[in-house]
Amino acid sequence: MSTDPRAGEAAQYVEPEVLEELLSMRSSIDNIDAALVHLLAERFKATQRVGVLKAKHQLPPADPAREKNQIARLKRLAEDAQLDPEFAEKFLNFIIEEVIRHHQAISETASEGGPQEPQQR
Amino acid sequence: MSTDPRAGEAAQYVEPEVLEELLSMRSSIDNIDAALVHLLAERFKATQRVGVLKAKHQLPPADPAREKNQIARLKRLAEDAQLDPEFAEKFLNFIIEEVIRHHQAISETASEGGPQEPQQR
Repeated sequence: MSTDPRAGEAAQYVEPEVLEELLSMRSSIDNIDAALVHLLAERFKATQRVGVLKAKHQLPPADPAREKNQIARLKRLAEDAQLDPEFAEKFLNFIIEEVIRHHQAISETASEGGPQEPQQR
Repeated sequence: MSTDPRAGEAAQYVEPEVLEELLSMRSSIDNIDAALVHLLAERFKATQRVGVLKAKHQLPPADPAREKNQIARLKRLAEDAQLDPEFAEKFLNFIIEEVIRHHQAISETASEGGPQEPQQR
């Protein structure tokens, strides 16, 4: 068992039964990670659509009031799920940072092509 | 509609139909976020169990070989799901950082109580 490539460096340190238990836990973590990656892909597809809508109507990429609501809601959900609410907030900020980067890219691409419409504010 | 609290600051800038479209997209994003939070909670429950096992058998909190495998796998999955593989890597590192923080806390708690067993390396 100590040559199982899934074992990583743990294989050097422990008995086969412990290693077996560790591998079983890791396989659950790998399944959860696959689900997370697919959900994140779907989330970015949705925010991509939001980005296109925002660029078309010249809305600012960031929306602090919306973000405040999202953070408060996710912290409540995290508490119910026994996830550290501070981590949930850090996680959402991490995602939003990436989304804003995407929206800025969309907005720059939009402003490079075609004539500019006046700001609608 | 412009007073809808879900609208955030967007309400000031756009016509009702565009706002309606934006709110519909945001409600999908909120559903995805709730799923992400619950999956993350489950993931930390799994890594918590790994942490306890590691502390019990005095395994190091980090496992670079395992992490390398995880990153390579998630990047492949991300590509299939049309998620930026670089983002998938950043995401996993963000999660692993938090997990190692948890494992160190478990390990410190374990070493505070009870007599120390010799290192099993």
